[in-house]
Amino acid sequence: MTKTVLSPAAIRQAVQAERARAERLFRQLAEGSPGHPGIMRDTYGPGENFAHHLIRAYAVEKGLGITTDAAENTYVTWPGQDRAAPRVLMGSHLDSVPNGGNFDGAAGVLAGLIVTAALRKLGVKPACDIVTMGVRAEESVWFQVSYIGSRSALGTLPEGALEARRVDTGRTLAEHMAECGAAPERIRAGERALDPASVRAFLEVHIEQAPALVELGVPMAICSGIPGNVRYPQARIVGKHGHVGTPMKFRADAAMAGADLAMRMDRLWRDHEIRGIPMAVTFGRFHTDSAAHGLTIVPGAFAFSVDIRAYDTSVLAGLEAHFHAAIREIEALRNVRFELGPRASAAVGPVDPAIAARLLTLAGEHEIPAISLGSPASHDSAAFAAAGVPMCMIFVRNENGSHNPDEAMEIDDFLEACTILASWVAEHVC
Amino acid sequence: MTKTVLSPAAIRQAVQAERARAERLFRQLAEGSPGHPGIMRDTYGPGENFAHHLIRAYAVEKGLGITTDAAENTYVTWPGQDRAAPRVLMGSHLDSVPNGGNFDGAAGVLAGLIVTAALRKLGVKPACDIVTMGVRAEESVWFQVSYIGSRSALGTLPEGALEARRVDTGRTLAEHMAECGAAPERIRAGERALDPASVRAFLEVHIEQAPALVELGVPMAICSGIPGNVRYPQARIVGKHGHVGTPMKFRADAAMAGADLAMRMDRLWRDHEIRGIPMAVTFGRFHTDSAAHGLTIVPGAFAFSVDIRAYDTSVLAGLEAHFHAAIREIEALRNVRFELGPRASAAVGPVDPAIAARLLTLAGEHEIPAISLGSPASHDSAAFAAAGVPMCMIFVRNENGSHNPDEAMEIDDFLEACTILASWVAEHVC
Repeated sequence: MTKTVLSPAAIRQAVQAERARAERLFRQLAEGSPGHPGIMRDTYGPGENFAHHLIRAYAVEKGLGITTDAAENTYVTWPGQDRAAPRVLMGSHLDSVPNGGNFDGAAGVLAGLIVTAALRKLGVKPACDIVTMGVRAEESVWFQVSYIGSRSALGTLPEGALEARRVDTGRTLAEHMAECGAAPERIRAGERALDPASVRAFLEVHIEQAPALVELGVPMAICSGIPGNVRYPQARIVGKHGHVGTPMKFRADAAMAGADLAMRMDRLWRDHEIRGIPMAVTFGRFHTDSAAHGLTIVPGAFAFSVDIRAYDTSVLAGLEAHFHAAIREIEALRNVRFELGPRASAAVGPVDPAIAARLLTLAGEHEIPAISLGSPASHDSAAFAAAGVPMCMIFVRNENGSHNPDEAMEIDDFLEACTILASWVAEHVC
Repeated sequence: MTKTVLSPAAIRQAVQAERARAERLFRQLAEGSPGHPGIMRDTYGPGENFAHHLIRAYAVEKGLGITTDAAENTYVTWPGQDRAAPRVLMGSHLDSVPNGGNFDGAAGVLAGLIVTAALRKLGVKPACDIVTMGVRAEESVWFQVSYIGSRSALGTLPEGALEARRVDTGRTLAEHMAECGAAPERIRAGERALDPASVRAFLEVHIEQAPALVELGVPMAICSGIPGNVRYPQARIVGKHGHVGTPMKFRADAAMAGADLAMRMDRLWRDHEIRGIPMAVTFGRFHTDSAAHGLTIVPGAFAFSVDIRAYDTSVLAGLEAHFHAAIREIEALRNVRFELGPRASAAVGPVDPAIAARLLTLAGEHEIPAISLGSPASHDSAAFAAAGVPMCMIFVRNENGSHNPDEAMEIDDFLEACTILASWVAEHVC
């Protein structure tokens, strides 16, 4: 095996040379998946398919290997000298929320391609395969299941997930997968494309999903951990529809019960903020029944989804216990009944401390300001961590948050992230 | 003019003789306006039209006079000896909420017809016209405007109301009216069918819309007042959509802002309950945006309707002031903006104290248990009171509240209400 030592300046220059390619790929992605407004790369639908086809076409053009798995994840491979050695995986997901932005998570896939292109131009021969993975179905808004693509690849998709229904079409994940050329029956049979032992590291570039870095004036962060979550995607409150004039004691107002629960969880979060314990609570869907509600009707039905998250397993367990206690109190107080429906959860995702430390050091060597930051959001990387794969993430600042049409990532910042990532890859396997 | 003195027993017997007629009319009404489940007599739509046609057909069969006005309200007239004398009006509305019940407010129209039939059979000659009015469009859930039919008749419909859009069809009140044979251009020109000076009294039988009477074991109540209300039928909260992982300080969560407002108004109501001051707050529509919400999205938009009501004008003003102060606090706390949209209101509706006292006395004479009770709900009677017409209402107990398919009024109770009403009419104008 050969080992080339590349200077930081050479790596930086090679990555900068890929600027036009990166801009073109981002533009093509956006043009091919319009969301009116924003971006629409629906999970196992036309938008996500378009993105995978674009990446595959690029790989063909560059003479890189393309493989897919039973979930139709895309793998773009730059073969290493030892094809059997544990590979380095870079990547992220290619789907988006409805009316989302162009960078969450496509930036992580393009980062893998740009890093690969830059290192190839530098003439190095990697010791192992360098693989960029375009992951399917990370955005759980569609099927209300986390990490579908990455967990399918790792063989850790939970039982029943293939029967989850897409919230807009009402059809199952298995049906949608099959339509996109995937083979859900192989997933059901337990096939896994990625043996965790065969992956040396999973490295994910992702835009920051809050404006913390923008506020601090820092372009980059190295992830210090990914929160676990507990979710009830399809919870309902059953009260009793009544006339707008109904006195309080006769009401079973399901909307007030929902508001009560939201405020109790909001207070809990504020208490944790004061104590410096990171967590979050989101009632993403929170609504009366559109078929029955009206100005003069006390709502007898209310629906909500809730996502509760924390970085510490015991904190998360405490939050969920508080949630259930609040529900019991509200049921007694407001004459309603909660039907929580299916519970989903994702484990806390620890980063590999050696990789994280090294990425921070490399940023310093490149004079790129970077901080260590907990990811408030969930990411495929957490599924890799849960499967035992060493992982870390690089966050790129982003002006307007994510999951909306106004996501704004500067290409300069993106290329800096690619420089750090390329440096790590070069140092470890080239 | 002749004046016949009828014994309480004779009146009671005459009303009881109408039992089969009443049952048949209620059955025909229900059969002709199914709601799947419940009843669907949509305002200025096929359901309401059916009910008016049924009442008119009944009047023709009985040889009573039928007139309509520019709003297509129905008037069934038993002519008096002096056609020019101020008339007695009985009645209520014939529309329902979606999936409503059969009795709210058709019971009040049928009561007028039953009282008329009973008194006619007793051979009396009324001094003035006895008119049963089938009022259009009382249920403000459809156009989000109160008392459309009665205020059209009285010439007090507020400006702009004809342009209100029905929440399901999106078409204007004027369009819906014209389709039903009404003449909105005459209403716009200021035509009024009822000069308040020409109405001696408006008397409305209505089911109770809460189970207070059922709980007390009392079949009947005489209304002591109708609350005024302030409404914002189309309020919105503008926040910012964000990722489920967004930290608290970067959120502009519109749903949490809605929950916060609801809980502040709920606490205000509980405080008033403790102090014994009747009021109510209802957020009938209370929802995230179905086109944009999802499990992993911090809601950036929230919509609600609110109805705030009280029996005292100064209490109502205080509640509205508190509402606005709460909104200002929430805007500052939660980084959102409220867009309240159009404001609607209805004045507090005082009952005529002499009529109310006499109805209670008559109930006692008939040995029908009855209490005095504030109407928590709004009723057309309030529009008559606001126009200066002496009015009162008789509430009939009802097992399951109103505005739902499970409304349950016993025919025995209904006939007792008719007996009290017939006694008042007989005593005053026969």
